[in-house]
Amino acid sequence: MPSVVDTGILHRLTDTSIPLVQRVQAFMEGMQSAMCSELEKLDGEKTFGADAWKREGGGGGLTRVLEGGAVFEKAGVNSSTVFGTLPDSLARKMNTKAERFRATGISLVLHPRSPMVPTVHANFRYLEMDDKDAWFGGGADLTPSYLFEEDVVHFHKTLKDACDKHDISYYPRFKKWCDEYFHIPHRGECRGVGGLFFDYLRGSLESDFMFVRSVAESFLDAYLPIVQKRVNEPWDEPERRWQLLRRGRYVEFNLVYDRGTVFGLETRGRTESVLMSLPPLAKWDYNVKPAEGSREATLVDVLQNPREWVA
Amino acid sequence: MPSVVDTGILHRLTDTSIPLVQRVQAFMEGMQSAMCSELEKLDGEKTFGADAWKREGGGGGLTRVLEGGAVFEKAGVNSSTVFGTLPDSLARKMNTKAERFRATGISLVLHPRSPMVPTVHANFRYLEMDDKDAWFGGGADLTPSYLFEEDVVHFHKTLKDACDKHDISYYPRFKKWCDEYFHIPHRGECRGVGGLFFDYLRGSLESDFMFVRSVAESFLDAYLPIVQKRVNEPWDEPERRWQLLRRGRYVEFNLVYDRGTVFGLETRGRTESVLMSLPPLAKWDYNVKPAEGSREATLVDVLQNPREWVA
Repeated sequence: MPSVVDTGILHRLTDTSIPLVQRVQAFMEGMQSAMCSELEKLDGEKTFGADAWKREGGGGGLTRVLEGGAVFEKAGVNSSTVFGTLPDSLARKMNTKAERFRATGISLVLHPRSPMVPTVHANFRYLEMDDKDAWFGGGADLTPSYLFEEDVVHFHKTLKDACDKHDISYYPRFKKWCDEYFHIPHRGECRGVGGLFFDYLRGSLESDFMFVRSVAESFLDAYLPIVQKRVNEPWDEPERRWQLLRRGRYVEFNLVYDRGTVFGLETRGRTESVLMSLPPLAKWDYNVKPAEGSREATLVDVLQNPREWVA
Repeated sequence: MPSVVDTGILHRLTDTSIPLVQRVQAFMEGMQSAMCSELEKLDGEKTFGADAWKREGGGGGLTRVLEGGAVFEKAGVNSSTVFGTLPDSLARKMNTKAERFRATGISLVLHPRSPMVPTVHANFRYLEMDDKDAWFGGGADLTPSYLFEEDVVHFHKTLKDACDKHDISYYPRFKKWCDEYFHIPHRGECRGVGGLFFDYLRGSLESDFMFVRSVAESFLDAYLPIVQKRVNEPWDEPERRWQLLRRGRYVEFNLVYDRGTVFGLETRGRTESVLMSLPPLAKWDYNVKPAEGSREATLVDVLQNPREWVA
């Protein structure tokens, strides 16, 4: 484990005598480790590998991937802390005059084997520009191949509860932002059924950190019960094919629109870590149209017309 | 068939009393039809469907796809002739002040079932901007999962012969351009073993048209003998997996870098026609490294270090 952080910091996350960035990094790395443990327990068959890597120019990360599991066909949990000179191209895109940056965060993408268990993504990050500007960003969102409404309600409700503890305006704002962000214009549909997306959270950074912790800590509660509930649902080959076609859309979003991915490829991040989000198998058939009234059509309808899942 | 062109024009391609754009369109549509026939014969099992579509703003196309064949897991041949007002965003990208455009062309992508038979792509196009500027573009390139040197030599040699009849400077220029264009920076490798790529060909348009015809007409001679030679090579599951991983790279190139694809998605072309190039099945495993000295390593070496295939 390449953590440069004293793990004792994990017990002093609110100790403001320690610089915030160090506490955030400790939290992110601790979260990565805890999530991998829980996911391994649930999978029961495979464990996560761990590849530590260094970034030329400053920092590095730890990429953890589980492949070919009983529950998860592919699961990736990445942590990284990078810093250094901000590339010009990036500074222009971010509309900043800052010269140096520091970023720490985790991202996670889980591709379950069963078409009845939804794919999920979460990401939490903290950025500092020079000594002048800093903010949190992140979110979590669910991408089912088949719609189980109660599962989507549970996912959203759990995230909403985490938000409401901090600011009741957060959930409606970040839910809407999520629907807007994970939109695939050329398909006229969202990638999935949403969740939360937030960025440039720069109120009181200490309370923003508390908020991010709440959301990150609620993530497994939002997702794991869905896996447990659906993992033994039966499925057949046509449903598997539909899942692979949906994964094709996931690839389209990530490679064409996702800021994190495009940013990672442009800044020559570690390609295998940036692209660990891509599915183990995906399919593109020509002009597939689900039959009217089918379960597949129900899903597409909800992706084309995002709903409110909790009041 | 939605051709607006008198097919009699096919027999008068050099008749300059007919506007060039009409002759080019007739040639492109005739080529599409001829290629589909040849590919169906070779496949022996499945035939091409035909979807005619219209473009809002002017023009349309014919998308022809064969799926689940004996030889071709997926084969797409698209023709289109579109015209109208040039979108501002596009005019800026193309660095032109033109207000109206007209484009006619075909594109083809074949994904064979066997990992021993290479994927192939070809594209030929003619563009007019207002009445002031016009040019041809196009090319053909080969993407094997396993390297058979003699096949690559045959492919390049056939295309070179087509070039040499017109201008001996073409092949070296367009071969190099192809290696540069089909490069995946984040992987540090080319998509395949190259071929030809050319654009902005605006010498004498009549002789440019003759050149494009020569290349297009030589395309099946460049590719089909390779299919016939390799289609009965034995292959196993690890080789199929390698093919699916290589197809993942194909997806990465097309969605992140390919101008035609990005252009098509940005201008809200018909998505299913733009993305017909994507493979029927593709795979992303984490951090796959071919064993030293393996056939897979040999391929990667040639993708990282493009070679000269014909003197």
